[in-house]
Amino acid sequence: MNNMMDKLIQKIKETNNPTIIGLDPRYEQIPECIKSKYEESLEGVAKSIIEFNKRIIDAIKDIIPAVKPQIAFYEKYGIEGMKAFEETCKYAKKQGMIVVADIKRGDIGTTAQSYSDAFLGRSKIGKKEEAIFDVDFVTLNPYMGIDSIKPFIEDCKKYNKGVFILAKTSNPSSKDMQDLKLETGEKVFEKVAKLIETWGKDQIGEYGYSSISAVVGATHREELKDIRKLAPHTFFLIPGYGAQGGKAEDIALGFDKNGIGGIVNASRSLINAYSSEMWKQKFTEDEFEKATRSEALRMKEELNQAIRDHINKY
Amino acid sequence: MNNMMDKLIQKIKETNNPTIIGLDPRYEQIPECIKSKYEESLEGVAKSIIEFNKRIIDAIKDIIPAVKPQIAFYEKYGIEGMKAFEETCKYAKKQGMIVVADIKRGDIGTTAQSYSDAFLGRSKIGKKEEAIFDVDFVTLNPYMGIDSIKPFIEDCKKYNKGVFILAKTSNPSSKDMQDLKLETGEKVFEKVAKLIETWGKDQIGEYGYSSISAVVGATHREELKDIRKLAPHTFFLIPGYGAQGGKAEDIALGFDKNGIGGIVNASRSLINAYSSEMWKQKFTEDEFEKATRSEALRMKEELNQAIRDHINKY
Repeated sequence: MNNMMDKLIQKIKETNNPTIIGLDPRYEQIPECIKSKYEESLEGVAKSIIEFNKRIIDAIKDIIPAVKPQIAFYEKYGIEGMKAFEETCKYAKKQGMIVVADIKRGDIGTTAQSYSDAFLGRSKIGKKEEAIFDVDFVTLNPYMGIDSIKPFIEDCKKYNKGVFILAKTSNPSSKDMQDLKLETGEKVFEKVAKLIETWGKDQIGEYGYSSISAVVGATHREELKDIRKLAPHTFFLIPGYGAQGGKAEDIALGFDKNGIGGIVNASRSLINAYSSEMWKQKFTEDEFEKATRSEALRMKEELNQAIRDHINKY
Repeated sequence: MNNMMDKLIQKIKETNNPTIIGLDPRYEQIPECIKSKYEESLEGVAKSIIEFNKRIIDAIKDIIPAVKPQIAFYEKYGIEGMKAFEETCKYAKKQGMIVVADIKRGDIGTTAQSYSDAFLGRSKIGKKEEAIFDVDFVTLNPYMGIDSIKPFIEDCKKYNKGVFILAKTSNPSSKDMQDLKLETGEKVFEKVAKLIETWGKDQIGEYGYSSISAVVGATHREELKDIRKLAPHTFFLIPGYGAQGGKAEDIALGFDKNGIGGIVNASRSLINAYSSEMWKQKFTEDEFEKATRSEALRMKEELNQAIRDHINKY
């Protein structure tokens, strides 16, 4: 049976697009044509978010392989927001997209198991078992070590799921911790990347990548190159393209000589494309879906060109 | 105005008890006298958890200053579980307890702001602002650096709240990352403790402790002593007592010569006291509240004795 990483890579190949769309809806930026239908209340916000996300998904589901809802943007609106998170994950999955829940959890054993039950596995209720959010991948934080990762790794095997563990993140202050130099001469993120490679070694799929994989930011050219060498079986979720300044030519360094090895996240540049300098002349706010689709196609071409150039230099 | 850390310390002084009770309900361990009232469904589980938590809170609210619900145990039951989390936080606050939401979040700037809106601040909906979970403290993960902490620090000032940032956690594999030795000779957790001390320097209250504080596990005697010196204005949330093996005499090393400086978490040993070796002879399952209260009083005496012994050695 193909593992979850194989499924993700197959889906990237089918769409010929190593993009993951970040569904991080900001209420302020949801088009008026949606917001005006609902009340200005937590319930109304949740309804706006659901409609917005579903319309975005419908607009790109044939050209983008995966979605990544960032749970903070839903928790922000409490229980109603969490309902929108749940409905978004379910809808994306039903439309055939791979769903990565960006939750960045990290906690000790029994607590980690509860998180894993919620997102990847099942929760026991007496003799029954219930799937709760049931997404394909989650993101994890490694600060508490293997105890905090292991329950997820085991559930990845049991339920055919995957995880992306933070190695080198895209934000400027990632250096505060991740760039600290160890007495061995290596940096903290390099140590983490090696640990991830080790943790993933028995879940490597047919393309040579493990379902236990890493987050490596697009804003760090040298680090992407470095980690690609250090962790050859570790697939990358690459945030930081677009709004945060990561460039396609830098991102390409995370890919192998077959042109695989990573998926690039874009959130605001895709979901709010209608208000961007590039697309606002061409599309009105009401045509936000067309703007998102146009930007998705442009991004895809840019990434594929950069990856082709990179392969030619191998 | 007293800041949130002053409030917590005052409450510890009033109850003469540096304990925080971890509300980490496991459905399997909720007494039958509660579970049997409700259906075996997600909704029924949530109702059981709410009744159990409220009865535990009522049993100890005059002798324990603070509660710490671990959100994983609620997320595990999806939307219904999150409703139980919300109701638990609201109820504990209404009963005069300090509420620490154990969420261990860590994400980049705009995402961190959304989390902070949800737990400490307010979420904007058009021109209105809504408090969502509105707890007193949250726990945070430092792996992404100051970007991921700053929005919370600012909201601590704005809304008079506090945070506990992971420095040295109680689990065995905390060593994987936190004990890595840097080229400067210090360990990662020492570096983090120093950063936390710096981040908290302008929110120090009348007892000399900042509302920007740290998580330091009870299972690491030397590290507690070490961090107490490195970060003299940093208050400690100390997990790992009881079930995980942390001893009162070790924990005392985290306290200063006035006998303050930390609050000790106990979860299972308190909420499931009725099934423990020590109390199951004396109380039936139906008397779980009495068992919890007895164990709380025993723990309080043990901690206070150890802290007195420690002060005498200063």
